[in-house]
Amino acid sequence: MQIAIVLYPDFTALDIIGPYEVLGRLPGAEVVFVAEDPGLVRNDQRSLSVSPEATLDEVTEPDIVLIGGGPGFFGQLGDGKLHEWLRTVDRTSTWTTSVCTGAPILAAAGLLQGRRATTHWSAFGELERFGAIPAHERVVVDGHYVTGAGVSAGIDMSLTLAGEIAGEETAQMVQLIIEYAPEPPFRAGSIDVAPASVVERARAALG
Amino acid sequence: MQIAIVLYPDFTALDIIGPYEVLGRLPGAEVVFVAEDPGLVRNDQRSLSVSPEATLDEVTEPDIVLIGGGPGFFGQLGDGKLHEWLRTVDRTSTWTTSVCTGAPILAAAGLLQGRRATTHWSAFGELERFGAIPAHERVVVDGHYVTGAGVSAGIDMSLTLAGEIAGEETAQMVQLIIEYAPEPPFRAGSIDVAPASVVERARAALG
Repeated sequence: MQIAIVLYPDFTALDIIGPYEVLGRLPGAEVVFVAEDPGLVRNDQRSLSVSPEATLDEVTEPDIVLIGGGPGFFGQLGDGKLHEWLRTVDRTSTWTTSVCTGAPILAAAGLLQGRRATTHWSAFGELERFGAIPAHERVVVDGHYVTGAGVSAGIDMSLTLAGEIAGEETAQMVQLIIEYAPEPPFRAGSIDVAPASVVERARAALG
Repeated sequence: MQIAIVLYPDFTALDIIGPYEVLGRLPGAEVVFVAEDPGLVRNDQRSLSVSPEATLDEVTEPDIVLIGGGPGFFGQLGDGKLHEWLRTVDRTSTWTTSVCTGAPILAAAGLLQGRRATTHWSAFGELERFGAIPAHERVVVDGHYVTGAGVSAGIDMSLTLAGEIAGEETAQMVQLIIEYAPEPPFRAGSIDVAPASVVERARAALG
């Protein structure tokens, strides 16, 4: 089971590392980090550099495709090599998945037309713009598309997917290995529960 | 505020990327991934390679030190360059922190003598062995030491720490940016709640 995880400049690391930690631990999983070009890819914070193991051209039939988000997603909305690759691999993938603002990239590539999908709370407009149906949920499954909400939601998305792929007991085993029994010290993780002042500051920080 | 995050071979990526995503977003944060030697460091799954930005020698007075876990922690329990560095930077750090089996490394370096600390559920024996007081909690603060439980607990650990460093409102802003409103699809993230068969399989998988 080959899992291709897409890297592009200014990606948000947790978007992809959450699901990587889950899906990569499934029996038979073989993960490959792919990028348009060889060479280190730097994240949004500019302090983390990851080395892709293959270029897009070299990975032609992954079973699972995963694309994350981050401020760099804006640069991936135009048609080009990545969109072409996504459209191609999506034809044979068992699952095509995204976290955060990875979903607008899938949508911009034409893959989410009329599909329900979720994304980061700040980016639902981008989903609509490209013909997807915004669903304000943490994890959305529509056909073979699985989308997760912002950043940390990739863990929930991938555990849900792990259950589909390998059965509940195996998904639970992975959950226990990564000790995913969250205890957030604050209640501010969604715009529905965060204080108004916090929402305002987060919007400003996101630009 | 310099934050040094330690890389070593066979690290678990989510251990450090969770806290990185939180602490790196605090005002004035400057993160540097450090390793004993230059060159790519490969994780436990062997499919992710991260490029450190500095060697241990080059980072002498970080404000925050963070070390994660992973199967590679066994190789970091013996005294040597990393332990020496940890003892040195700990003298001036504001916070010395760990996630998962990073705590036994701190303990082995002599930093957690008589301190309460937490670690991955499978590794409490390693904490005790090196003189720390095992505390079966998700996040433990003792003096300027902050330890988190297994893998995903680094997110809770770092949000707790973010509140201490930058105040609750800023920590909540970061929580909202990473949309940390977890909805695990299963209830199996700790040995207290996971079915016995799942615990057994997880223990076997961890070896």
